[in-house]
Amino acid sequence: MKKIAVLGYGTVGSGVVDLFEINAASIAKKAGEPIEVKYIVDIRDFSQDKNAEKFVKDFGVIENDPEVSVVVETIGGTNPAYDFTKRALLAGKSVVTSNKELVAKHGAEFLQIAKEKNVNYLFEASVGGGIPVLRPIAQCLAANEIDEIYGILNGTTNYILTRMIKAGLTFEKALSEAQEMGYAERDPSADIEGHDACRKICILASLAFGRHIYPDYVKAEGITKVTLDDVRLAGKADMVIRLLGRTKLAPDGKVFAYVGPHLVPKSSPIASVEDVFNGIMVHGNMVGDTMFYGPGAGKYPTASAVSADVIDAVVHADKRRDIGWDDAGEEAVADMSAFTSKYYVRIEGESARSAATQSFKDIEFIDDSHATAFITAEMSEAEFERKLAALSERSEVLSRMRVLY
Amino acid sequence: MKKIAVLGYGTVGSGVVDLFEINAASIAKKAGEPIEVKYIVDIRDFSQDKNAEKFVKDFGVIENDPEVSVVVETIGGTNPAYDFTKRALLAGKSVVTSNKELVAKHGAEFLQIAKEKNVNYLFEASVGGGIPVLRPIAQCLAANEIDEIYGILNGTTNYILTRMIKAGLTFEKALSEAQEMGYAERDPSADIEGHDACRKICILASLAFGRHIYPDYVKAEGITKVTLDDVRLAGKADMVIRLLGRTKLAPDGKVFAYVGPHLVPKSSPIASVEDVFNGIMVHGNMVGDTMFYGPGAGKYPTASAVSADVIDAVVHADKRRDIGWDDAGEEAVADMSAFTSKYYVRIEGESARSAATQSFKDIEFIDDSHATAFITAEMSEAEFERKLAALSERSEVLSRMRVLY
Repeated sequence: MKKIAVLGYGTVGSGVVDLFEINAASIAKKAGEPIEVKYIVDIRDFSQDKNAEKFVKDFGVIENDPEVSVVVETIGGTNPAYDFTKRALLAGKSVVTSNKELVAKHGAEFLQIAKEKNVNYLFEASVGGGIPVLRPIAQCLAANEIDEIYGILNGTTNYILTRMIKAGLTFEKALSEAQEMGYAERDPSADIEGHDACRKICILASLAFGRHIYPDYVKAEGITKVTLDDVRLAGKADMVIRLLGRTKLAPDGKVFAYVGPHLVPKSSPIASVEDVFNGIMVHGNMVGDTMFYGPGAGKYPTASAVSADVIDAVVHADKRRDIGWDDAGEEAVADMSAFTSKYYVRIEGESARSAATQSFKDIEFIDDSHATAFITAEMSEAEFERKLAALSERSEVLSRMRVLY
Repeated sequence: MKKIAVLGYGTVGSGVVDLFEINAASIAKKAGEPIEVKYIVDIRDFSQDKNAEKFVKDFGVIENDPEVSVVVETIGGTNPAYDFTKRALLAGKSVVTSNKELVAKHGAEFLQIAKEKNVNYLFEASVGGGIPVLRPIAQCLAANEIDEIYGILNGTTNYILTRMIKAGLTFEKALSEAQEMGYAERDPSADIEGHDACRKICILASLAFGRHIYPDYVKAEGITKVTLDDVRLAGKADMVIRLLGRTKLAPDGKVFAYVGPHLVPKSSPIASVEDVFNGIMVHGNMVGDTMFYGPGAGKYPTASAVSADVIDAVVHADKRRDIGWDDAGEEAVADMSAFTSKYYVRIEGESARSAATQSFKDIEFIDDSHATAFITAEMSEAEFERKLAALSERSEVLSRMRVLY
């Protein structure tokens, strides 16, 4: 019988506790022995909860209980999650987490401590919720050199975009609907400004390229500026708008990473990822494109990923998993001005079309009776910004985003 | 330095040999030491090949070389692959394979020997080519009870169906195109009759439900009867035709498994899997639906999956992977007559519509000027066959297939 502790009894934490009860028999079979939640840490009052007798308020109890071999951290945020994670690892316990903020900000530090203590720091649930993606990249694609990863990493914004596309709702209307459905928080900024997706692409980039890519060095743009004009014009070009996190190995060996809205061809599997689902495309130099699709959030999907990591930490208690990366600073991150892409630009004004043609030369217009946009040839961000600045002097630029191709 | 042997120098085998050369540096880093191909076994003459000095014709050399810890079997078919695999395992070497026929027919036996010898028998490449799917099911979804798996498991037939749908080619035309492109073999029967997909769904079913499901007990129908009328009518109902392998836990604890063409709603992610790509949807009781997408065949994608297994076998030489299942007989397989589905039926004849309504009651017609079909309510196969027999007496039934919903 293996004992674990769960920190935080919110959506994910309570899901993990439930899951180990619901699937107890099959988990015992897979882990080779039963796994039991011995403690739950939450400062709130759960004295009426069915698991009331498991609650403790003092993390020290867990830290000092040698029977607890795995600590599950689902508190979220950095405080007290950072402190608890560090203390658990230092006490020689493996830590499993769904806390993307903590992994993105402090992953390298925790991975180093885990290595020194010969325990595991596992975080499959931090990207893509229930979707198996980090371990498949690290293990199943181990024979590949990963070139590029891009994906829909945030379910809230994907729901909003899907509703704008399918039901013609404005961004504001789609956002309030998402809030009513419980998909968006009352303060939705972490989602709609792209910060959540940014943490996830940083984790994916770190794993794929072996160096910690910190969110501080990665530009994130959300979907607040996407309008129904953009949605409609994208549709005319047989594309849909999706918020993508993207990372790619730069020619100089550094790592490109960013988050932003994109026009995505409808023929791309990523375009078929709708509503709150996530989809992550991984390109390896041998396998080519593979995509991982599923629920990117939610109580039981996230608990599913957390619990698989727990089982793994129990089964491989004597053998560390080599899922991780080295620490690195800003020098690991490539300057985006060299990143090449096609761009979509929506313009307005009498001479806008001719100005666009003069500034960008080789472009394709998308028109309808209400709006005009164009798609550029592939160029570096630096070149695009230079040409866009020239265009801006002669015409109004209403919106711009990258095009996936 | 770890030494391996590669059996068979065809498409996949030569891909594996290439891959360990191309990605040597990154593989050495991940495996903790370099991995070198010491022997290649092929009865054909490769004396002019760049790897000529590695070729041996006698498998006994490998069997008796204690330096070889992993044997890669990419010969295909059962003879001599069966014999070589067994001898390698009995000699205490791990075996990695892309040979779905062998895994589907003899997996339980090899898994048992591997267990006794404390080595690994790994076969990620046997399903979905380069797509990581078996290991994610076994490990990343370990906290789930898997309820159902369905997917596009054969790239050749998916290419043919895609060309019928997108270019309006007949089955025959699309097949010869696939043959010209090298996607279909000169004798295409294993693909178009569904036997290849059948082996793969058997492997998935065995892994998901823990009992060997033998192809002999699983009904496979291919795509040879699919016509452009069916493709067109499916399109009118906002669906596409896809050849699916499908397995599901039956209420009595047995395992449903079959292969057959289906109407799939365009809104399903499986519908967006086009051309030679594969997509496998896995439903777990906690995670819900997750899909794995990518290249289902091809030299380097398949070599990618094989080589990841090799790395894993090297890294975990001292600790067996628990990916496997127990042997079982026909009693493990559920009788399909109890399997419930909606059905698509295409009919012809003057009184066909009224006969269909009388036989099936609650149906939805799909019509165009050339053809008529209908979609039934959900019912068991037994009920469907009974009603279809009644209908057949009064009207001509031209085609029928299941509908995914």
